[in-house]
Amino acid sequence: MTTQTVAIIGGGPAGIEAAKGVAELGFKAILIEKRDRLGGTPDEQKYAALTPDLRDTQTALRELIAPIENHPNVEIMYNTLITDAEGALGDFTLKGVQLGKEVEIKAGAVIIATGFQHFDPGRETQKYGYYEFDDVITLTDAEKMLSEGKFVRPSNGEVPKRVCFIQCVGSRDRRLGNEYCSKVCCGISSKQSIEIKKLIPDCKVFIFYIDMRMYGYWENEIYWKAQEEYKVNYIKGIATEIVRKGDKLLVKGEDTTFRRPMEVEMDVVILAVGMEPSEGTKEMARIFGLKQNKYGFIETIGGPLDTVSTNVPGVFAAGACTGPADLEDSVSAGGLAAVKAMAALRKLEAVTA
Amino acid sequence: MTTQTVAIIGGGPAGIEAAKGVAELGFKAILIEKRDRLGGTPDEQKYAALTPDLRDTQTALRELIAPIENHPNVEIMYNTLITDAEGALGDFTLKGVQLGKEVEIKAGAVIIATGFQHFDPGRETQKYGYYEFDDVITLTDAEKMLSEGKFVRPSNGEVPKRVCFIQCVGSRDRRLGNEYCSKVCCGISSKQSIEIKKLIPDCKVFIFYIDMRMYGYWENEIYWKAQEEYKVNYIKGIATEIVRKGDKLLVKGEDTTFRRPMEVEMDVVILAVGMEPSEGTKEMARIFGLKQNKYGFIETIGGPLDTVSTNVPGVFAAGACTGPADLEDSVSAGGLAAVKAMAALRKLEAVTA
Repeated sequence: MTTQTVAIIGGGPAGIEAAKGVAELGFKAILIEKRDRLGGTPDEQKYAALTPDLRDTQTALRELIAPIENHPNVEIMYNTLITDAEGALGDFTLKGVQLGKEVEIKAGAVIIATGFQHFDPGRETQKYGYYEFDDVITLTDAEKMLSEGKFVRPSNGEVPKRVCFIQCVGSRDRRLGNEYCSKVCCGISSKQSIEIKKLIPDCKVFIFYIDMRMYGYWENEIYWKAQEEYKVNYIKGIATEIVRKGDKLLVKGEDTTFRRPMEVEMDVVILAVGMEPSEGTKEMARIFGLKQNKYGFIETIGGPLDTVSTNVPGVFAAGACTGPADLEDSVSAGGLAAVKAMAALRKLEAVTA
Repeated sequence: MTTQTVAIIGGGPAGIEAAKGVAELGFKAILIEKRDRLGGTPDEQKYAALTPDLRDTQTALRELIAPIENHPNVEIMYNTLITDAEGALGDFTLKGVQLGKEVEIKAGAVIIATGFQHFDPGRETQKYGYYEFDDVITLTDAEKMLSEGKFVRPSNGEVPKRVCFIQCVGSRDRRLGNEYCSKVCCGISSKQSIEIKKLIPDCKVFIFYIDMRMYGYWENEIYWKAQEEYKVNYIKGIATEIVRKGDKLLVKGEDTTFRRPMEVEMDVVILAVGMEPSEGTKEMARIFGLKQNKYGFIETIGGPLDTVSTNVPGVFAAGACTGPADLEDSVSAGGLAAVKAMAALRKLEAVTA
């Protein structure tokens, strides 16, 4: 029995928050991360600023990580991949590989926080020419440039005069099998449009969308600001094709508000790629025998009143490994998973004492 | 010093989950509720089924509440209003009134979970005639009927043939001062439209919307289902006025997809009223000296990476008292608030030991 230890797999926002909760309440947290750094996708993909508060990502992540870095109750295992697991609540054994060496981890409960990966816009949507045109990029490509304080045309390094975002690339799309909405892309696109306008005030920025899903405070904090202060042009329309026109890109589609075809020239096109389960998420689901939904995300079993319990007692899931999630969702679920994991272990102890 | 007790104010989903977390980890939870029942707004407003899983609200709430009802670490104080508070982390004294009698509660940390109230559609939106026409109702009025297994025209008890929802009533509206999006109304309207079609298959149901904010799985679980299985008609359009026409209602506005004025007859109009801070939320902010945003919701201070900390150490806020929130947001934040409250008390103990 290992009723005082919780293993957390994945060192992004959900996993960090879960490890913190576990450690600060006196349990031991073993945080297992495949890379040599914490921070998850926001760090790995070099996000510039967070949505919605536009705070510098690295500063915010450092603050999130600081409390666990030298915490006596936290063991961080970097460069570690979990490859197998056995046991049950109170007595899990995780097997893995750390820099070529086999490792074994004992834990009473497990929190999966292995997150998502961005949709690959080459897959079945070659209509947008992501692998064909240098100036067709993704949200994450844009984040990388913005995090370096610049925004240029990748093809020639020039400052763009016209930039557009195409929403719902890899989301809300039955043909691709991804019927769900990826939840955060509208917000991130709007945030990036503000960042681009800050860098290049006379650049014209367009967002082609189906519905602008700027829920809650994103509406007033980003969407209104983007339109009113930064003059971002939101166009309800569907882009169906991108072709080359001289050294520009020609975006073809339909403006659905004016019910007419549109053809617009752009210097850079940013594809708002959606979320899919990461390889790690699919792998952990397999290893731990967790139910997955048809998209491959881990299925939580408690409906809207329980965001973290899975079909396996003692194994919880938090954040984007369960489906599209924003940062708030991820840290909140990380906290709830920590509580539920520790509570399950305490109950077990009480029963077996 | 009272470092083993957390007071939770508000017995809705966020408060219940917070109390459960506190109690199950061995701290004492004092759950303070103004009504004589737990369950919060979903119970008080007699929600029929939950969004998005359409599970019966009372069944789901009973399951949520069961673990704390007879838990030795939970004290539930019903019919109790907090009227004053003093002290600081580790040593709060809350004063209140319980059925006319003064009560005093000692706690080391406090979690505010006092939620929201629905926008009153009489306030400044009399254009929709909520107080004038019996057949103009709100989402909550509709929930009450649906929870009784019926849906009729309130004016005459007849089964309606044409029903419409008007989205964003009291939300995304600068004139009213509510620029934010209330996040859940698109989902709830879509859920209700399915429930109405289940009861009255030949009823025509329309939803007039600006953007359908069916984020994440709501897209595939409710939005597609409403359209494909239940033939709900989604119309991007703005309703500007409702007038009487015989014994029907005439909804006037603009269909923004077809760019033309619309006038449609309806038997029942449902106003998708948004969220505003509850009286309790505003009162707790005042009593505890918590920062509020311009809308009166409690402001959390940690950006997207901390959904529950307030400007007052030892006082946390969870769920819709911090802004528009769905059920997932509320229970997740309840869990995180529980962890953070207990962690703050443990740190304090370590320092003062």
